[in-house]
Amino acid sequence: MATKAEARQREILDAAAICFARRGFHQTTMDDICREVKLSPGSVYRYYRSKDAIIAAFVEDDSRDLSDLLRQVGQQSDLWQGLDWLVDQLLAAISSPLYAELSAEIGSETMHNPRIASLVRQSDQANHQALIKLFSLAQQRGQLATNLDLPQIADLIIVLIDGLTWRKGLYPEHDLTLYATDLKHTIKYLLSGTRF
Amino acid sequence: MATKAEARQREILDAAAICFARRGFHQTTMDDICREVKLSPGSVYRYYRSKDAIIAAFVEDDSRDLSDLLRQVGQQSDLWQGLDWLVDQLLAAISSPLYAELSAEIGSETMHNPRIASLVRQSDQANHQALIKLFSLAQQRGQLATNLDLPQIADLIIVLIDGLTWRKGLYPEHDLTLYATDLKHTIKYLLSGTRF
Repeated sequence: MATKAEARQREILDAAAICFARRGFHQTTMDDICREVKLSPGSVYRYYRSKDAIIAAFVEDDSRDLSDLLRQVGQQSDLWQGLDWLVDQLLAAISSPLYAELSAEIGSETMHNPRIASLVRQSDQANHQALIKLFSLAQQRGQLATNLDLPQIADLIIVLIDGLTWRKGLYPEHDLTLYATDLKHTIKYLLSGTRF
Repeated sequence: MATKAEARQREILDAAAICFARRGFHQTTMDDICREVKLSPGSVYRYYRSKDAIIAAFVEDDSRDLSDLLRQVGQQSDLWQGLDWLVDQLLAAISSPLYAELSAEIGSETMHNPRIASLVRQSDQANHQALIKLFSLAQQRGQLATNLDLPQIADLIIVLIDGLTWRKGLYPEHDLTLYATDLKHTIKYLLSGTRF
């Protein structure tokens, strides 16, 4: 169960997500966030000293969520069932309210804010490594061919997820579950080592 | 050959791209752009009355470039050679200076600026339709199976390109040509109608 401090942090992050999505990261002030969450500046600053700290919390949350999902896939004995489940979970995460809008704000901020860029790269590299580790374990279990370029395949899977996130941002009304089957098959294809 | 007005517009757009990439769309002023291009506000406003108009010009340029590429693919008799060539051209375009940074700014602006969102969607839908038309022609020529979900496949190809654009923004030092072979094969896989 979340502690009171965690619940308060969640409220602030949810309010910040609404503000960023509505007006963009740069046009949002800490005051806007305080007003949206109905807390005094003192209460907000206690947890987050700047908008950068809030963006950092979003990046860390997202990375922790993905690493939880990947750990659960690693615990399943059937790699392919695990990956299908992962795709469904990821599409649901991308489809959650404000996720795509927030990703676009983080994306833009990454391009000219070195601290955020460094955080996003760190988180991306952790995700990338976790995917490679998952596939390496599957190779050891004899579930995957051993001659695969795992870093590149992991990269392309992340590319697909990032591209779908942007698609959802552009067309919020799109139902991403319609892509699930093709996405699962494409990942299987990439991991098959077959190329035609 | 470009007219003098076209050359001037190009100079302004190039200067704006540098400013947007350096500080972001919102923190850039029209004054910053005038200083960067070393022109008076009058000369800049003659072509672009606002930052929105500049972003709109970027979106239109990009769309025109892609539509030129797709027309050239359509003129080639071998669909697969044409698509391989297209992938190389797209990777080169994404890798051109400031392209990924600018895409991230346009992405963020799309989320909370209805005019820009409408332009980006229009351009995206034109690209989507052009891809579908290309594949339909290939079906008529007997080069592609007829039972394909062309709108979805076109979507997924755009998803791959968008995802790679974000990847390049996050890691400017990445050499995208390393993805070319896997990308070409994945597109062939999507268009093969085989799913495993």
